[in-house]
Amino acid sequence: MEGAGAMEWGPLAWSLLSRVRQQSPLVQCITNFVSMDLMANVLLSAGASPAMIHSLEELPEFTPNAHALCINVGTLTSHWLPAMKAAASLAVQHGKPWVLDPVAAGASSFRLKACTELVDLRPTVIRGNGSEIMALADATVGTAKGVDSAHNSMDAVEAAKSLALSSGAVVAVTGAVDIITDGHRVAGAANGVALLQKITATGCSVTALIAAFVAVDPTHAFEATASALSIFGVAAEMGIEMAKGPASLRVHLIDSLYGIDEASVLSRVKITHMK
Amino acid sequence: MEGAGAMEWGPLAWSLLSRVRQQSPLVQCITNFVSMDLMANVLLSAGASPAMIHSLEELPEFTPNAHALCINVGTLTSHWLPAMKAAASLAVQHGKPWVLDPVAAGASSFRLKACTELVDLRPTVIRGNGSEIMALADATVGTAKGVDSAHNSMDAVEAAKSLALSSGAVVAVTGAVDIITDGHRVAGAANGVALLQKITATGCSVTALIAAFVAVDPTHAFEATASALSIFGVAAEMGIEMAKGPASLRVHLIDSLYGIDEASVLSRVKITHMK
Amino acid sequence: MEGAGAMEWGPLAWSLLSRVRQQSPLVQCITNFVSMDLMANVLLSAGASPAMIHSLEELPEFTPNAHALCINVGTLTSHWLPAMKAAASLAVQHGKPWVLDPVAAGASSFRLKACTELVDLRPTVIRGNGSEIMALADATVGTAKGVDSAHNSMDAVEAAKSLALSSGAVVAVTGAVDIITDGHRVAGAANGVALLQKITATGCSVTALIAAFVAVDPTHAFEATASALSIFGVAAEMGIEMAKGPASLRVHLIDSLYGIDEASVLSRVKITHMK
Repeated sequence: MEGAGAMEWGPLAWSLLSRVRQQSPLVQCITNFVSMDLMANVLLSAGASPAMIHSLEELPEFTPNAHALCINVGTLTSHWLPAMKAAASLAVQHGKPWVLDPVAAGASSFRLKACTELVDLRPTVIRGNGSEIMALADATVGTAKGVDSAHNSMDAVEAAKSLALSSGAVVAVTGAVDIITDGHRVAGAANGVALLQKITATGCSVTALIAAFVAVDPTHAFEATASALSIFGVAAEMGIEMAKGPASLRVHLIDSLYGIDEASVLSRVKITHMK
Repeated sequence: MEGAGAMEWGPLAWSLLSRVRQQSPLVQCITNFVSMDLMANVLLSAGASPAMIHSLEELPEFTPNAHALCINVGTLTSHWLPAMKAAASLAVQHGKPWVLDPVAAGASSFRLKACTELVDLRPTVIRGNGSEIMALADATVGTAKGVDSAHNSMDAVEAAKSLALSSGAVVAVTGAVDIITDGHRVAGAANGVALLQKITATGCSVTALIAAFVAVDPTHAFEATASALSIFGVAAEMGIEMAKGPASLRVHLIDSLYGIDEASVLSRVKITHMK
Repeated sequence: MEGAGAMEWGPLAWSLLSRVRQQSPLVQCITNFVSMDLMANVLLSAGASPAMIHSLEELPEFTPNAHALCINVGTLTSHWLPAMKAAASLAVQHGKPWVLDPVAAGASSFRLKACTELVDLRPTVIRGNGSEIMALADATVGTAKGVDSAHNSMDAVEAAKSLALSSGAVVAVTGAVDIITDGHRVAGAANGVALLQKITATGCSVTALIAAFVAVDPTHAFEATASALSIFGVAAEMGIEMAKGPASLRVHLIDSLYGIDEASVLSRVKITHMK
């Protein structure tokens, strides 16, 4: 994969989506309440098999059977954190990839500490917006007022590289252009539409889609992450042609993700190596 | 009802739906986080009155006023299990029907034990997919990898009959053909579309719809269960004619359930006695 | 604002919506599981920034940064109540408006007591259906069987005025005509469509929209509440022209709220002073 040219991303993304559809990876999600519905439907429409299971009692039996794990701290409480940590540890122990979504990482010291502890459990991928990745990289509270980003993704490139190097994870920063880096390579994925920001949990859901893509190619997390982000963006681009606002975009986005074909992927995927 | 011929199912299903619309039964749901939105909307569109209430403190006052109870273990934790058991006991004590959805029953020993304990509290109906019903009937873990079934419904007919006889419940196994049995009679409901499997919580929601139908005719749980499954399938068949994928099917399914008329029910319901 | 004539409500409502769109107030929501998805999407489509954050640990850092707080007791448990109270106290302490949705207040004594304790924490606005407001005003259990109202809004005018006077809150009673009162003034907002009752969490979501409107004009809670109710109703009226049932209405409602323009607001808003 090293040195893949711009021309190769389309076939690569299509190949990974095809593998998700064929293998239907089981993706365990420990995620916030707001996102569960959309996340499960995004995973199903991409061909994956979602399972929202978070009880400490069953993690030792369940997590080792999952093909990937997605942890999202959106509606974090101290009651859920132990299960998040236990599941992450089990995933690592059993060689399963896991993906972290550090929602609103900088909104409180409790939240930042929880995210930092999760990063220490060696996620395969971390996906956040600019403010979240900067908060994590700098370990500082207060970079954004809520769950929405106060920074664009380009502001966070250096923070993302730094976080990738310190954590060992591929780091993705979503925004007008999605940035993906493993600390050495940096790619930009330019698919998607601005109206996605007016639909709750689209960021959470694309993190779960990354988990599904990484599940079918865990040794190429950089490429799988960029591909998942781009495919989701392509589905949004196809969806917006039929949409009249955020709610109809949500419907058409999922329909498009379900029906997307090779020609659309090859002609639309816009991923470029930036370094 | 005993010995009802194939010709009578359409009018029966229509009669039950009409009673749901007229009586608007209060259906208490203790269900997983993923399903709450769709389940409430399915119940509302069918004419029922959903109430997602699960706090131990208010069950003694609330559950006796409900017309039926739906318990779904999808996002089970040890914190919720006591309320599920208390609500089930209250329903039985007050002569109210209750319906169990043993989501992913075989995914862990914790989950299987919880489901078994709930079955011991004498549900009126148990609705699951093939793998879930087989896990419950055999009391074995590991029959499916996640929440999706690894078996089709026809594989589970004998397991369903066995579970019905041992539990005293009507057992429904959903799949390409839905199987309904009380241990003696077996019916098949052949409505529905495959794309429903790509929408999260459709199985959970049809379980709640069964609760609404059983609420208006609790002494005929076998017929009410088959009718609810068939009506939901008919709404999906009507919905798919307008759908372009799973998300638009979800929209049209609910719209169709809300608007479905007698002619559509009579012409489309496909329930047959198999034994 | 005192003495605003009927002719001025349209421009006022449009002005408030414009300010929500421009300022994008951060609205913290501690709400029931059923409503989270729709509530977040309604806030986003109106231009606000929702944050579903309810952990006790981070309230002291987070709530003071929010521009308004929405508390909804729909899926209340004893585990969530302390966070609701703490957040309400923090909002008052920091001069931030907060809005209470006393879902099913009369369904149990536990729930009624919780709602009464929250009312004692001086919400800026209380929004409920007729049965809920009557239960709160009379402090009595049993006025409605579930979460749906057994009374229409006009039945509850005196109860609403009494509750407004005793609590210091603006009280809104939603129904065919929405009633808004501060105990002295009474306004009626006649926008909306009956089919909204067949979509779960529309009442919860309009409460959150009230919070967004109050956030941008906290000293005029009466006017902001009436405007939010009317704008939501206008979006529903625009949505129903394209809808075929409750699920498509939900989609078109959100799309309409996102796209609604000045001409539609000015021509459609129907708010009248009733006293």
